This record gives sequence, C-alpha cells and structure tokens, in this order.
Amino acid sequence: MATIVFYSVNKTARIATRRCLTLHSKWLAGDSPLSSIHSPTPAFLPGARWFSRGCSVRFMSHGTAGRASAGRIRRGALALSGAAAVTAAAAVAGLLANANHFQSAEMATKVPQVAEETETEEEGDILERCRGFMASPVTDVRVLQERKDEMSTRMEMLIMETQADFCKALEKVDGGKFKVDQWQRKEGGGGISCVMQDGKVFEKAGVNVSVVFGHLTEEAAKQMRSRGKVLKGKDGKLPFCAMGVSSVIHPKNPHIPTVHFNYRYFEIEEEDGSKQWWFGGGTDLTPVYINKEDAFHFHNTLKEACDKHHPQYYPDFKKWCDRYFHIKHRGETRGIGGIFFDDLDSPNQEGVFQFVKSCARTVVPCYLPIVYKHLNDNFTDEEKDWQQVRRGRYVEFNLVYDRGVKFGLATPGSRIESILMSLPLTARWEYMHEPAKGTQEAEMLDVLRNPKEWV
Amino acid sequence: MATIVFYSVNKTARIATRRCLTLHSKWLAGDSPLSSIHSPTPAFLPGARWFSRGCSVRFMSHGTAGRASAGRIRRGALALSGAAAVTAAAAVAGLLANANHFQSAEMATKVPQVAEETETEEEGDILERCRGFMASPVTDVRVLQERKDEMSTRMEMLIMETQADFCKALEKVDGGKFKVDQWQRKEGGGGISCVMQDGKVFEKAGVNVSVVFGHLTEEAAKQMRSRGKVLKGKDGKLPFCAMGVSSVIHPKNPHIPTVHFNYRYFEIEEEDGSKQWWFGGGTDLTPVYINKEDAFHFHNTLKEACDKHHPQYYPDFKKWCDRYFHIKHRGETRGIGGIFFDDLDSPNQEGVFQFVKSCARTVVPCYLPIVYKHLNDNFTDEEKDWQQVRRGRYVEFNLVYDRGVKFGLATPGSRIESILMSLPLTARWEYMHEPAKGTQEAEMLDVLRNPKEWV
Repeated sequence: MATIVFYSVNKTARIATRRCLTLHSKWLAGDSPLSSIHSPTPAFLPGARWFSRGCSVRFMSHGTAGRASAGRIRRGALALSGAAAVTAAAAVAGLLANANHFQSAEMATKVPQVAEETETEEEGDILERCRGFMASPVTDVRVLQERKDEMSTRMEMLIMETQADFCKALEKVDGGKFKVDQWQRKEGGGGISCVMQDGKVFEKAGVNVSVVFGHLTEEAAKQMRSRGKVLKGKDGKLPFCAMGVSSVIHPKNPHIPTVHFNYRYFEIEEEDGSKQWWFGGGTDLTPVYINKEDAFHFHNTLKEACDKHHPQYYPDFKKWCDRYFHIKHRGETRGIGGIFFDDLDSPNQEGVFQFVKSCARTVVPCYLPIVYKHLNDNFTDEEKDWQQVRRGRYVEFNLVYDRGVKFGLATPGSRIESILMSLPLTARWEYMHEPAKGTQEAEMLDVLRNPKEWV
Repeated sequence: MATIVFYSVNKTARIATRRCLTLHSKWLAGDSPLSSIHSPTPAFLPGARWFSRGCSVRFMSHGTAGRASAGRIRRGALALSGAAAVTAAAAVAGLLANANHFQSAEMATKVPQVAEETETEEEGDILERCRGFMASPVTDVRVLQERKDEMSTRMEMLIMETQADFCKALEKVDGGKFKVDQWQRKEGGGGISCVMQDGKVFEKAGVNVSVVFGHLTEEAAKQMRSRGKVLKGKDGKLPFCAMGVSSVIHPKNPHIPTVHFNYRYFEIEEEDGSKQWWFGGGTDLTPVYINKEDAFHFHNTLKEACDKHHPQYYPDFKKWCDRYFHIKHRGETRGIGGIFFDDLDSPNQEGVFQFVKSCARTVVPCYLPIVYKHLNDNFTDEEKDWQQVRRGRYVEFNLVYDRGVKFGLATPGSRIESILMSLPLTARWEYMHEPAKGTQEAEMLDVLRNPKEWV
C-alpha cells in the first residue's frame, strides 16, 4: 500500500487548512519566476514521457503530447524516475472506487463509460457530494467550494467519494461497519482512516484517505534522488502537497482474494519555483488460489478502463505492476497483479485526471463480483493455512519493499497505524514451506513465479 | 537475528572447503606486503578502540591494549563503525551456548568460570568434539585438525558446539526433534540450519550456523561504507571470511519469552593486503509479559559473564542492545534487551575470543531456567492474542530494521529460509491496539518504551 499518512494531533483542521490554502494560493497564483510557464492548468508537455528504469518498463509519448510552451522546463529528469520514485511520488495513500457504478453481484465485465461522462455530471455540488462521505474532507468545505475547479479540489473530492463508495460496498457485503478515524498532521493536512476488523467476510479491511502538505524532509528528498528523481529544493527543502486514497482488503475466506488499490496526486515546488505535478496509482489482486475466471474478470475490467484512454496503458501498466509487486528474495510476485503506474503527467493534467478517475471507478466492479461469487465457498484448515502463509509473504513485501511503507516509516510524524493497516490481522511463516507438486498451492506458486497474461 | 546465510547447492562441501582453505592459506601465510605486520595471531593493537556512533555508545581503550607492532595500520577508521556496521560486519549468523554448563532447571544466577578454563580443557580433540555436533562442520574435519590453532578453526568449533548444546537443551525440554539442514553456498562455504516447528513447548525454534567466504558484493561493501566502515577493496572487491551461530526461539506459552542470540567472527582483506578481524554478538530477551525475577536473572547472568572480562562491558553492551533493538516507528524496543556488541577487536584476538566464549556459554543458563520455570503456566486467549501482537512487532523489527536480515535479503544467493527462520510461526496486527491502563500489557509496553536497568 503506497500510503503516506501522518500523525494525529488534537487541533481543529482549520489551521492546517488555512496553511494548505496559503501554500496552494502561492503555488497556483504563480508567484515564481516561471509562473507564466507553469500555469495552474499545464499545457501539453513537449516530449512528455515517463518510464521506469527500475522496472524496465518504458513508455514514451503516449497520448496527444502536443504544443510546447516556450521556455518550458522539460520534466525529463523528473519523469525518468518511474516506479522507482513511487514512494515519495505517492506520499499519500490512495484507494479509489465508485460503487455507483457497481450495480449487481454478477460478474461485471463491462466498465461504465465513465471517461465519457461530462465534468458537470460527475462533479456536482460540493456540499451535496460531501454528505455521502465517511467524514468531513480534510480541507474545509468552504475552501473546496471556492476553489472547486482546481485540480487539488477535484482530486480531494474524488478520493473522498471513492473511499465512501468502496466502504459502503464492503459494509453491504459484510454486514459490519467501518471504524472511522479522522486525524490531523501537525506539519499540515490530515486524513480519514476507515478500518473494519474481524468482520463476517473481512478479516481486515482498511480504506485510507490523506491530504498532506509541507516540506519534504531531507530523508524523503534523498530517497527521491536516489531513485532518479532530480529535484532541487530551496535550502534543501521542497514544498509539496500530496493526496490519495489507498486500501487493502484481507478477506477471511481463502477463496476470496486480497485486493489493494491506491490513487494519488502530487505537487512539488522546486528551488527555482517551478511546480511539478503527477498522478500515480494502481489496482492489484492477491488470490490465495488461482481462479482463471476471476483473474480474467479482474484484468479485463482494468483493461477496458485503460483502453478508453490509451491502447498501451493496460499492457504497459500490467507489466509495471508485475515488476513492482515483486518479492525479490522469494522470486515471486505478491499476487496476480493488475495495473500500476507512477509519474503520469501526459497528455495533460485533465487527461490524466480522467484516466485516474476511470481507474478508480473500476475498483468496485473489479473486486466486488469476485467477493460475492466466493462468499459461501467452503474451505479446509489446509486452505486456511496456505492463506496464512501467503499473508506472510504479503507482510514481507509490504515491510521490505513497498516504497510507500518505507517512506512512511522513515518520515517523522507519520501515522503508523494508517500505514500499517495494510498488514493482515494474522500471518504465518513456516520454515521451508513448499507445496507438493500437482496441488492447487503449487499451481498458485507457479503463477507467482511466472506472471501470466490473463486477457 | 543478525544472520547472513546463503543458498544451498547440490555439491559436496569439499570443493568449497578447499577454496576456503586456499583463501585462508593466502591470508594467513601473509603473502601481502604487510605480512610481517599482520601475523596470523595479531599482536596487541595500539590505541585499539571501538564504539558505535549510531548508538552513541562509546567505549575506548578497554582492556590491556598494549605493545604496538611497528608500522601496524591502526584500525581506527574501521573500528569507528560500531553498531551501524553490524550487518556487513556480522555477515554470518551466530547463536552460541554451551549446555554443558547448564546443570539444572533451577535459576542459575551463577555463571560458570568459563573464562578461567584452560585452552586444553575447552578445546580438546577435534574429531571427538565433532561427534557431538548436529552435523559435520562446514569445513572438512581434516582441515580443522591441521589448523586447529587458527582462530577460524577455534571459532568454527565453538559455534558448532554451541549449536549442538543449545539444540539438545531445547529438545530435552520440548520432547521434539530439530530438523537439520546442511547447505552449501555456491560462492564459498555453507551452513547447518536446525529448526523445530510446532513443538510441544516451542512454536518455532531456529539455530543456525554458517561459515562463508568469498568477496563482498558491491551492495554489501556500500552498506558497510554507508555505516562508517571505511574499507578499500581491490577492484572494488573485498575478500572476506565470516562465521557465526544465530538463533531465535519462539515458545508457545506467552509466559515464556522469546530469546535471540548471535555470535560471529569476521575477517576481511583490504586492497593493501591488510587483514581486519573482529567479533560481534549479543543475547537478548523478548518477553510478552514483564516478570522482574526473570529479567533480573537474565541480565545478571549476562553481567556476571561480562564482568569477568571488563567492568564496562555489561553497562555499555546493555545500552547498545537497547539502542539496536529499537523499533523506531513504534517508539518501542523489541524486548527487554540483554547485551549487544560489534567490531570488538580489543584487547587482542585471544581476549575477545575468550569473552565471546563466555557470552556464548551463558546463553543456556540465561534462558533455560526461565523456560522450565514457566513451562506449565496457564494462559488465557487474551494473553495469547497479546503474544501474537508482540510477535507482529518482532516481525516489524526483523524485516524493517535488522541489518543482518536486510543484508541477507539484499545478497544474491542468500539462503532465505535460514535468514527468515527468525520470524515467528504466527503473528497478528490489530489496528490501533493499545492496552488499557493498569493492565499487564500496559506495564509491558511501558518497559518497552522506557528501557530499564534490571541489575
């Protein structure tokens, strides 16, 4: 779970919000020497590109990359970071889904035409939309209303909506209720963590929103640099604003897979006043046993959402996902993947936002049909044990490799409970565990060792 | 568990042993320009010192540091690394205990006078001693016999003996048997992993020996340097030889604490042919509930072993232990500590070896009396749950902070199952778990947040 969440303090959100606003105002009013170049709504970037060096996924000049603003600083160096920069790039958690688009418990292989909906239909009255949230947004509602057209507002509304829709869909199937924790970050911003533990269906389900801002610590900046992200800060400090929704769902029944997703938006200001922004995210599935129909449904739903935006998105992001969720010391992927992307800033801010929205809204149709399908599957003690061993591997990935977790744990003031809510309620480590040949457990391992194409 | 263990290959140990021997011969015959200075049995080091910068534990000129060999290169830069260099410094697992010195199940607050035993009594016939081991030593017995006075042989015999003595003591109390795996490392050396899983008393007990050699990878060398260890290799490569014994024991009953220990020896050759050597190790206890009598017994037994060698050893190494086993993101120590040291090369090789031997031989008298004492303690489901939550923290420390584990996971060819045998069979993560005030769980947490003096 590429989540960065921060420590809760007993203050009202207003001070933080005011500070955030000031920061935003400064950035968006363009008081930097490059303000005419870096307008609030960026124009097309010439040669805009992103790829992951670490993951060997290369993807350039997708979309309609078009006219250049004279003197624009190319984001080459920044964009080259790829998956390797996901930690700091993410800096917030992201889980995104829209239950409005999930109509039944049947396999929903068709993705709603979300990309074609109009802005107006999707982004209605702010106050009205806030009523359906799990809690008040991090930013004051009046501020959101005043700045409703800004990307930070639109993204905050999207992540809040996503959290609410996904939580409600899970509550409906489980019968339990999410515990909702609002927390603030001393340094700026805050979040809403929703956790359901030991439910009827779900062993542990966490859905977290965070909206944070401030300055990147030296540690964080160093992490970014070491991953290829060349960013120069004023006196070594980089003002940033980051937000996202993130979730990990661990069901009890070993025939219902674990799902994870995260969608995030990041703004960062360099020493010369230039502002960088990008989106990141992904959705991936971690089954305990292989079910080809489930795998096809999950991947195909994602593919259809991606295909509306670019034909290369799904194949490239699928590959990136397999490479990112790789438990190197085991020679296994964490699960059967899905999609994963980072540093996405092409073709333009609106285009990427629409893509992220499409992805977010496919989470519920990707996952809930699978939950309903296996809700009453019987399972043996051996199957439960195998699930627990796989949970152990999940813990290994999250604590050893996940850049969001690593970044969060290394960041002073992080809200540890929100970062680590991605860990399962229970896990198991058996010495030299190796399933016998020909078993379903061995089949699962084979897939994890040799990622497959499902669509 | 500061363990470095390596991948098993299906070859006989002999080839590896021959290679190791060649390496040793080269080093010990002193074919370097500095051979007259770096004799096989190093003379006293002038100003020999070690301290941990990372841990703020400073300890200089303990012991009888004495006469200088003309032209000897001071180990200042190397010795300055302290705890921060434990990973690479360790490079092998180490668990050390001698059950011969554990006579009964009663609290053994008196440490046998091991430091005063003579060499002859302790280090008898090699073939005879090998008969009691869990498996054949990594190095061919004939080679050990030929080189019986060399430190690498004496240390290998000590770690093998320790493994056997501790395993037998545990088998006796549990009634179960250890599974013994011999493995070889393609690049040189190998090990013996002993694991007992789901026993009557022990949920998971692992005792590992490894004797490895070869060249430090760039990754490893970098890790050493980043921790202050200034080592220059020929063409960036550093020939090394490392050995150790390491163990983690997780009992089932929440009233029996988890114990960990590790004793290791390291030799490394720099670009200029100079050879560095040092010892490291420690023993620490992780109870689920505080029992002051147990804590006193454990620490006092260690203190008495330390006091035979230097009055500052226990206070300094106790502090170092508390600082090393610190779960930073939780603001807790992993357990109630014990002792921890690294880069120990003073007063001289023989002196340090005798100290390490004393430490190793206190493991059984430190731990087994506590096991027997609580063998039949009743416990509730709530107590078992709290144990599982603490196990989760153990996993967090081992995967996020333990330098031995991190080094091992990052080293190609490592034997992952041996590195991760330190993980408990089962663990648990509850969101926002905080014991109620006044409970025994809260008392435990208080101690972990504010390390105490037990002696």
